Amino acid sequence: VTYCVGILLNEGVVLASDSRTNAGIDRVSTFRKMHILERPGERFFALLTAGNLSLTQGVMSLLGEWLGTENPERDLWAVGSMFAAARAVGSAVREMHEVDGGYLQQRDDIDFSASFILAGQVRGGQLRLFLIYDAGNFIEAMGDTIYFQIGEVKYGKPILDRIIQPSTSLNAAVKCALISFDSTMRSNVSVGPPIDLLVYRRDSMSPGFSIRLEGSDPYLRSIREAWGSALHKAFEETVPDPGWKL
Amino acid sequence: VTYCVGILLNEGVVLASDSRTNAGIDRVSTFRKMHILERPGERFFALLTAGNLSLTQGVMSLLGEWLGTENPERDLWAVGSMFAAARAVGSAVREMHEVDGGYLQQRDDIDFSASFILAGQVRGGQLRLFLIYDAGNFIEAMGDTIYFQIGEVKYGKPILDRIIQPSTSLNAAVKCALISFDSTMRSNVSVGPPIDLLVYRRDSMSPGFSIRLEGSDPYLRSIREAWGSALHKAFEETVPDPGWKL
Repeated sequence: VTYCVGILLNEGVVLASDSRTNAGIDRVSTFRKMHILERPGERFFALLTAGNLSLTQGVMSLLGEWLGTENPERDLWAVGSMFAAARAVGSAVREMHEVDGGYLQQRDDIDFSASFILAGQVRGGQLRLFLIYDAGNFIEAMGDTIYFQIGEVKYGKPILDRIIQPSTSLNAAVKCALISFDSTMRSNVSVGPPIDLLVYRRDSMSPGFSIRLEGSDPYLRSIREAWGSALHKAFEETVPDPGWKL
Repeated sequence: VTYCVGILLNEGVVLASDSRTNAGIDRVSTFRKMHILERPGERFFALLTAGNLSLTQGVMSLLGEWLGTENPERDLWAVGSMFAAARAVGSAVREMHEVDGGYLQQRDDIDFSASFILAGQVRGGQLRLFLIYDAGNFIEAMGDTIYFQIGEVKYGKPILDRIIQPSTSLNAAVKCALISFDSTMRSNVSVGPPIDLLVYRRDSMSPGFSIRLEGSDPYLRSIREAWGSALHKAFEETVPDPGWKL
């Protein structure tokens, strides 16, 4: 399983992904699920992937092959907007399904599907965040919905729902994303470190700040310990017991 | 969707269930998902249900019809142990599938399945907690696994994982169960109040303490408010920001 999250804030965007991949419980490996394509000053894209690994790798390969073709519907160096960029990712998913889908639909034991989070900015345009579905269609973060998750999304959702607002700072959003990962990794062993993290400041048109946090990373460990005891403390002290005679 | 949880502690057992049922997003109703069968001083059973309503109601009706038949494999007044009681519930599920299953398997749009949490104690035996699957087989809480959830289980799992231990008091477990419900109801509108709650003290062989909490219940509301601000406070104060230059 995978867990990825993308959060769109006033200050910029925070993206995080785990790196555990498994084909069966006894074939566990580490693959990067965060992919960055950027031309400083020009355009910046980050793509997070979840789902069947041959499908997501195929999508990344196609997008790579399309670079430099100057096709404004497929070449991420040539697209004129983030909307066109999201469509290009959608086209890559659809092409993968056309080529491989027929062979895999017959196999009940393989889930040949994927989903993607795309964040980015093209010079002259806005910073935008998209959730791209397996069918190649997509939705965009706006209004009250400013974050997307893919993969194992439920365990880590409550903390995002309670904390994240458009005005949340980038540092606070990073902390919140990592707490969300902590809850997810605690409940599902098939989501695991290292965690790739990327922070892109709105309108900076720069590569942004990226870091890979290993399981032994001191900040990740301090989150794990501090959040656990903070929850215990909150549980003990802040919320009253029902005080019923049981 | 449904959310139910059963927690087995040194002191006794805590059970909680929501009451929202929906057949499509525009057919929402309230049904009790907690069912209690007891003979003070003799035996005590509580059954929580999740899944297809015609199936779970059928199971309850069958168990009701079997009462008083003195069949030690089906009559909950006659079973000699909690193991036999769990088997009786399993038999009821299997009978429902035999009668109705064939007609419903053909319909892709209907999920004709169910799961159950059974807690109880028969005089002379231990207090035990079971999770009964749709196929009628079951597992029992023991060792490190002392709680079961059915229905929409993921949102409310992290807090249970962090707090619940065998030595947790009944009052603290009630509080933890209600926080788990609060997180679930916040993230999934198809889980909703009233919440039925039951606390049975080990070896008491008495009906236990039961209460139905409406959405407007002051304690439920105080949990909602206190837990939300406790999380915010924990987030702000206890866990450090990464402090990266972003």
